[in-house]
Amino acid sequence: MADTLSLSIAEIATLLGEGKLRARDLAEEAIANHERFGAGLMAYSNWAPEHARKCADAADAAFGAGMRAGALQGIPTSIKDLFAVAGFPTHAGSPRRLPPKFEIEGPLVADLRRQLPTVMGKTHMVEFAFGGTGENAHYGSPRNPWDAAAHRSPGGSSSGAGVSLCEGSALLAFGTDTAASVRLPASFTGNAGLKLTKGRWPTDGIVQLSSTLDTPGILARSMADAAFSFAALDRSLGDGFAFLRGVQSSVAGIRIGIADSWFWDGCENGIDDVVRQAIDALDRAGAVVKKAPLPEVHDIWALYLEGGLSAIELRAFLDHELPDWLPTIDPVNAPGLKNAENLSARDYLSRLARMRDAAKSAAARFDDVDVIAAPTVMFTPRVLADKASAQDFWAHNRNIVHNTMPVNYLVLCAATLPVGLDHAGMPVGLQLIAKGGDDERLVAIACAAERVLGTPRDILGAPPMCRI
Amino acid sequence: MADTLSLSIAEIATLLGEGKLRARDLAEEAIANHERFGAGLMAYSNWAPEHARKCADAADAAFGAGMRAGALQGIPTSIKDLFAVAGFPTHAGSPRRLPPKFEIEGPLVADLRRQLPTVMGKTHMVEFAFGGTGENAHYGSPRNPWDAAAHRSPGGSSSGAGVSLCEGSALLAFGTDTAASVRLPASFTGNAGLKLTKGRWPTDGIVQLSSTLDTPGILARSMADAAFSFAALDRSLGDGFAFLRGVQSSVAGIRIGIADSWFWDGCENGIDDVVRQAIDALDRAGAVVKKAPLPEVHDIWALYLEGGLSAIELRAFLDHELPDWLPTIDPVNAPGLKNAENLSARDYLSRLARMRDAAKSAAARFDDVDVIAAPTVMFTPRVLADKASAQDFWAHNRNIVHNTMPVNYLVLCAATLPVGLDHAGMPVGLQLIAKGGDDERLVAIACAAERVLGTPRDILGAPPMCRI
Repeated sequence: MADTLSLSIAEIATLLGEGKLRARDLAEEAIANHERFGAGLMAYSNWAPEHARKCADAADAAFGAGMRAGALQGIPTSIKDLFAVAGFPTHAGSPRRLPPKFEIEGPLVADLRRQLPTVMGKTHMVEFAFGGTGENAHYGSPRNPWDAAAHRSPGGSSSGAGVSLCEGSALLAFGTDTAASVRLPASFTGNAGLKLTKGRWPTDGIVQLSSTLDTPGILARSMADAAFSFAALDRSLGDGFAFLRGVQSSVAGIRIGIADSWFWDGCENGIDDVVRQAIDALDRAGAVVKKAPLPEVHDIWALYLEGGLSAIELRAFLDHELPDWLPTIDPVNAPGLKNAENLSARDYLSRLARMRDAAKSAAARFDDVDVIAAPTVMFTPRVLADKASAQDFWAHNRNIVHNTMPVNYLVLCAATLPVGLDHAGMPVGLQLIAKGGDDERLVAIACAAERVLGTPRDILGAPPMCRI
Repeated sequence: MADTLSLSIAEIATLLGEGKLRARDLAEEAIANHERFGAGLMAYSNWAPEHARKCADAADAAFGAGMRAGALQGIPTSIKDLFAVAGFPTHAGSPRRLPPKFEIEGPLVADLRRQLPTVMGKTHMVEFAFGGTGENAHYGSPRNPWDAAAHRSPGGSSSGAGVSLCEGSALLAFGTDTAASVRLPASFTGNAGLKLTKGRWPTDGIVQLSSTLDTPGILARSMADAAFSFAALDRSLGDGFAFLRGVQSSVAGIRIGIADSWFWDGCENGIDDVVRQAIDALDRAGAVVKKAPLPEVHDIWALYLEGGLSAIELRAFLDHELPDWLPTIDPVNAPGLKNAENLSARDYLSRLARMRDAAKSAAARFDDVDVIAAPTVMFTPRVLADKASAQDFWAHNRNIVHNTMPVNYLVLCAATLPVGLDHAGMPVGLQLIAKGGDDERLVAIACAAERVLGTPRDILGAPPMCRI
């Protein structure tokens, strides 16, 4: 069976369950894809084909005994190196292995692995997830496979996650999202991404960036794949098949709010046009499209420019847990962590209080709309310069998280799905933002939208560097 | 029916439900008690007999129609002025009425009032709950009815809560506990008190002292009454009658750990002996009594002496929500709130991290014991001096919360029940501490212990200032 990996996760899971496909063959196909495309892409910090084969054999043995440990049994999966995964060292993008406590699996990875997925390895990431471009002073940056000529940003901080999907070595990629880090790499690499409401999934067993904002999330090659995996992992749902069957087949009646100009003004390379065309297509398909103000983004953006919450919370985490890692922090990030020393507890708590107020106010904006639509990122993935100044780096970092960070600070949830290419030929994401706690409805709406707009593969084809 | 209020809440609720007692008669008895005993005691900041009569009439009307809104229907109840209660102003012990948002009921009071209790009024408290003696620079302090000769501390910060029970104007009193504020006034006034695990009951609709440590709690005239009310209010239980029926009638096999000497050394006036005798009685009744180390108290106490979490969190709350209230803060408390300005965000977050580590470590101490037993307070309620220095005040405040504050910082839960009088003739409390989340089991154990030891009324009789 050639190119099985072009099927959806649900289709593959069905074939596996029916005994028409072996997890081991799927793993070998994923390994072959990595060997074929992966050398220059640098998706994995810890590529583990032998481990993957063992996982696949275990999945096959269970299938052979008539046992189904979960919907993700036998599905090739990559995991960001911020997660503890039993048997793997955790570096969190730092130059040294972290202490053993950071290798104790949390409930999310434990739930995943109880389903007997095929874990392909751990993916590259920005050091301690503190930054959005994907660059890492110690290891370099994975390459965005959508540009064969130049080394463009794959997005970060889950920088290897999207690339692992592009190269065909994983069907499901675990990342984390504190301001952008699932949605940004998903959008930059032409994949679907899902950032859940804070608290929906636990963060235990994941190295902390911001205790206030961190969320685990998933990237997949389509929103249907993301939805299947979301349902398979979410305790309240429990079955990817049933969830997908329940998704409405049209977008008729779904109320889509078009985000304020704040989310659009300054879009590069026609990104705004690509996203608007997608919304227009949903409108023609029966969605109720209207304006949706979200003025809370202004306060939240100001708070972010003052320094936000991540720098001080990461600094406090490193002080307490990993003080020996401070001297080797990427020199671009070190000043931000150093400056956090000057923040008073009053100002920190004031930021938290302002955030809570804004989040409360923002929740009411969803009374009239099911989701708010906006470009996921307003900018084309940049060609990574060898020696960008720290100032330039951080200015660009602010730009690329501009449309995603309000979702974290306003305690909302959001999905991104690829809807086209910009004038530079790079993928463009449509972000659908929903009220905090509405994760399930968000995923269903994003799936319905994908059925109207087409899957990423329909719309974009394969990335130039990963074409067979 | 004379002195109905000497019956238990379960007995009264049964009589009310059977139509053998009218809620209005009960309310009139409570009002008469307040008129008889209450003048010098100052339990209430807002005594509301007319409101109580309306509540009672509504409860009777519902009973008459065969409707039972909840187990607390018709039960005379007092509420600390930190809680928003519809129709009542909120002052939180400050000299001025707080803005309207602080009068919007949270889910706990809403759940309570849906059961049609008879709300007697709002009780006095320490300004913004910041302090344990019960003193308030604007209003004075309620009087502890256990000393007819001298004005002794009723405990705080829920300073009127226990007194309302003593005078017979309420059978159930709502308080909050951030370091001691339910258990301390309960212990000082010879009542039972229950401090639940953080997060068990919501704090919405309660003016914040410490967002990290605040918990709502209840005081009652016996642990059986507290248990009945706890079950009536706890979403996971729902019925006080069923809960009490489920409590085991002996303490056989219950594993009681005796707390470290840290909880005992320095007890005044024979308090340690009174508590030890109670534990001995439980031992003789079949409890398994053993030593129970809890070394985490040392770190936590050091953290508390460094400044803890309440001062900075209250300061940040006032900065954000009530800046106009800062200039009128009790001059004894003002310096602590002022000094909190100097705390860095790093140090604040370090304290939180140390607290989390200690709490995690402490949880494992309950593998071998069901509860850890200690004196609730090591000191006799002090005669309130007119002009105690701020330094003396805070030294004493630290002393009286010494045995209770670790429960908050270690994310545990605890009950206090009166077990005798000290050499000064003042009530002594036995504190039973349980693992965080074990609230239900804690309450059942404390009830079983009370069945062995006797109710507060059996052991102590009525307070000298409230004897008929």
